[in-house]
Amino acid sequence: MKTYKIAITTGDKKGIGKEITKKALDILKPDKKDILIIGEKVDCDYDFCPIEIEDNGTFCYESLKKACEFAKEGRIKAIVTSPVSKFELHKSGYNYNGQTEVIENFLDKTKKQAQMLFIADELKVMLLTRHLALKDVSFSIDDVVFKTNILNNFLKEKYKINSPKIALCALNPHAGEGGILGKEEIEILEPAVKILNKKGINITFPLSADSLFAKVGREYLNEQNLSYDAIIACYHDQGLCPIKALAFDKAINTTIGLNIIRTSPSSGTACDIAGKNIARAGSMIEAIKLALKLA
Amino acid sequence: MKTYKIAITTGDKKGIGKEITKKALDILKPDKKDILIIGEKVDCDYDFCPIEIEDNGTFCYESLKKACEFAKEGRIKAIVTSPVSKFELHKSGYNYNGQTEVIENFLDKTKKQAQMLFIADELKVMLLTRHLALKDVSFSIDDVVFKTNILNNFLKEKYKINSPKIALCALNPHAGEGGILGKEEIEILEPAVKILNKKGINITFPLSADSLFAKVGREYLNEQNLSYDAIIACYHDQGLCPIKALAFDKAINTTIGLNIIRTSPSSGTACDIAGKNIARAGSMIEAIKLALKLA
Repeated sequence: MKTYKIAITTGDKKGIGKEITKKALDILKPDKKDILIIGEKVDCDYDFCPIEIEDNGTFCYESLKKACEFAKEGRIKAIVTSPVSKFELHKSGYNYNGQTEVIENFLDKTKKQAQMLFIADELKVMLLTRHLALKDVSFSIDDVVFKTNILNNFLKEKYKINSPKIALCALNPHAGEGGILGKEEIEILEPAVKILNKKGINITFPLSADSLFAKVGREYLNEQNLSYDAIIACYHDQGLCPIKALAFDKAINTTIGLNIIRTSPSSGTACDIAGKNIARAGSMIEAIKLALKLA
Repeated sequence: MKTYKIAITTGDKKGIGKEITKKALDILKPDKKDILIIGEKVDCDYDFCPIEIEDNGTFCYESLKKACEFAKEGRIKAIVTSPVSKFELHKSGYNYNGQTEVIENFLDKTKKQAQMLFIADELKVMLLTRHLALKDVSFSIDDVVFKTNILNNFLKEKYKINSPKIALCALNPHAGEGGILGKEEIEILEPAVKILNKKGINITFPLSADSLFAKVGREYLNEQNLSYDAIIACYHDQGLCPIKALAFDKAINTTIGLNIIRTSPSSGTACDIAGKNIARAGSMIEAIKLALKLA
């Protein structure tokens, strides 16, 4: 049974996936034995597993399924996923809000271990909630202890940090200002922190997210040591707007907590520029490098 | 009747207001005739209007009230406000969620013109909603046309931009992904954009906030021309996390839409370090400079 370090899915047929995969491989030139491409044919000299399905959403879904099968069989250690449009998935009847959820469903149906972590070198931001309408976020903050544990273990295991320093963003502006601007800090986040601290996990009380990112942003831009090994944001834009503002396409979407690592470039499908050979491969290069490193 | 360009309130008695006011004035050395200090005595040679009230919250409130009275009488053109704790305001019975709301109440009770705009040189971010628990944000997005108009007029008037280019952040991640991740883009934001475009205002359709800040962040950090003269964020952390990550204490909280301009440093009250003479005055310096410029 042939094994690889990583599988790369080519993603949305109308998107830039194939293009950035080719560009990244041409530049990185990873060892042929480490790489398997899944999806559409990419013009390069790496092993390839075709998914012969016309419907775009189904194709994307089946590509991920195939990668997960390889993972289950122990034939790969990491998956790099090119961008997929959730709209196409939904159109084809796959009601997932993102690729993370699809992969989670195949590799971890019941335990909900998969966590979304964005990595830009030293700067790391994990999300407590993922692809959700904003109105649903407040009611969806849960399992803070469980999710923080997964992050803590990941940092210890993969980055060899003894006692990782983790900063927790408050859900509400000004950390709820003592309950005036929301009570989730008092009712959900602070109790979780107390439990975590008792377990010896080095996590802060909920901090005003804008002040936290001001501090860490300055450190990151000045290339100083960061005050925290990772930051936990309560929801998508709270974490992604600042990390992408700071690191642009170096911010790699990483799925942790499963038996395999998954990384994904920060780009969207960018269908408007697909096929024109103008898509930037910088983020895909980082995603492949990170997957090879963590695999 | 003596007039000044700007009044500076010293803010929370237990905070760093007095300290950063003194430091900033010592460094900037603005013309004596331009500056009036309101609140507690600051050890410097500028005109001073004391507020002799012991209770901290009431003191903060009355300082702002006094500044607004000066504004109404046409004796000042701008107010610079040192940080105030909303918790102290509430404790004293003033149920405002921020100083912006207090000022709005005095200077514009009915029209709700006051808008919160953060300015870091060329980078400008206005908020559609302000100090709100996150769970209330989705239901509070309103008056998009009205608020955008105020921003557009401000940019034309104060920055002499003929047809300002404005980017609108979507409320939901991935701009709602066609309705899958929330419908506010389709139901509220897009119709507002259509009206604005018809009026000749150059505003984008709702954009994925993280992708937008990735783009603008790179431009800002590379000191390129920005694609947009201003960005409208739907809520506090969506706008403030990235602008503060990028610009740290250069991001100045500015209130526009009233007859006077108000600026405020990005710092909090920072009571833990107050009186130790270690508070950084960088943001206060920028706030005073900006107020003098816009006044």
